[in-house]
Amino acid sequence: MRIDFVTLFPAMVLDALSHSIMARARQAAIAEFHAVNPRDFATDKHRTVDSEPYGGGPGMVMMAPPIAAALDSIRADRGSMPVVLMDPAAPLFGQADAAALSASDRVALVCGHYEGLDERVRTCLCSHAYSVGDFVVTGGEFPALMVADAIVRLIPGAIGDPASHEDDSHQHGLLGHPLYTRPESFMDEEVPAVLKSGHHGNIASWRRRESLRRTRDTRPDLFAQADLKPGDLDLL
Amino acid sequence: MRIDFVTLFPAMVLDALSHSIMARARQAAIAEFHAVNPRDFATDKHRTVDSEPYGGGPGMVMMAPPIAAALDSIRADRGSMPVVLMDPAAPLFGQADAAALSASDRVALVCGHYEGLDERVRTCLCSHAYSVGDFVVTGGEFPALMVADAIVRLIPGAIGDPASHEDDSHQHGLLGHPLYTRPESFMDEEVPAVLKSGHHGNIASWRRRESLRRTRDTRPDLFAQADLKPGDLDLL
Repeated sequence: MRIDFVTLFPAMVLDALSHSIMARARQAAIAEFHAVNPRDFATDKHRTVDSEPYGGGPGMVMMAPPIAAALDSIRADRGSMPVVLMDPAAPLFGQADAAALSASDRVALVCGHYEGLDERVRTCLCSHAYSVGDFVVTGGEFPALMVADAIVRLIPGAIGDPASHEDDSHQHGLLGHPLYTRPESFMDEEVPAVLKSGHHGNIASWRRRESLRRTRDTRPDLFAQADLKPGDLDLL
Repeated sequence: MRIDFVTLFPAMVLDALSHSIMARARQAAIAEFHAVNPRDFATDKHRTVDSEPYGGGPGMVMMAPPIAAALDSIRADRGSMPVVLMDPAAPLFGQADAAALSASDRVALVCGHYEGLDERVRTCLCSHAYSVGDFVVTGGEFPALMVADAIVRLIPGAIGDPASHEDDSHQHGLLGHPLYTRPESFMDEEVPAVLKSGHHGNIASWRRRESLRRTRDTRPDLFAQADLKPGDLDLL
């Protein structure tokens, strides 16, 4: 998969993807990351990418034409692809969206900055728009990095053991169960005895119950939509 | 404010904060960013930070003691502070959480990696735990960067014009209104006439209506909790 970021801070995005699992995905040719700067497509001598909002108000708004030209530059020799806007006013990004995008061979991620973007970036240039949460950040770069990470890790080969996906929080609509490793005792808290019992059935039941309980207590909104199995309510 | 990241990838986090508004906040002494690596506090010659989960299963789990020692190293000469775990099984991080944390003079952000963290990191070492959304990423670093950004931008002086906060999506429980800037016409879409009218009352009404409408249509969950004003329903 190839991911193109449209961002005023290309180095920030590409540096952040040069570590850990994203770096390994790049080395293994599972993913390649590129970044294009709308400023390189500004048409005036000051390389202006933003201007004041119509109707007045604080801050500056990113203009649509440099972003359109940046997108044209990465699409010139290829077909269409999902163009995803990071937008705090859009629907929330979720694991199903990550899975859908991970099936594409190319994705573009458009990052806003300053007060925001001209509305026509969303309506004319982007096929998807997602928010990553109900909070405000200074730009779309960190959200886009998270979306890229969530997409790439689902591509076969990106993570060593595909079974690792199965227990993740949000992979099946429930939060993950607690995990314990060495030492057995830490600050007077012991590893639950069942996990040391060697009894696979009891361990599986305990994990399922903790996953259900944690989801019900912490995220009742997810629990209400969860796809429960026969016996789940007995576990609780 | 001082933010300490506890992470296996210190360079990744610090590099990402060396651009744009976070870099300016650092230069202006509004924020300082540090990172400490649990691996530097491992006690064996292989500098082991993870181990297999009790009860079996795929993947590796980060051990609590190196994280405890890393936290001790940054707390040694200072008092207590919020220690925030990035945890996909925790409650969702929101703008009110960002505002509360931005009042601290220090915050530690603990990033997991591998399959997850020993449960006792959360129960014994952290005062807060947040998820940034219902999707899975390979580590807590990108989520922690977003949380740091959301916190720091609320500190007075971090953003040039404090009025910029007022219209943000999520600042008042509603999504922001659409923004338009030059050119007047882009790909046959025109700037709405009202925004060029110079009539401040009409512009304010249009923006409020669009903000309400967008919230109702895109995020009915937010709309249901929004603090509506007299006249809002008439606008709709």
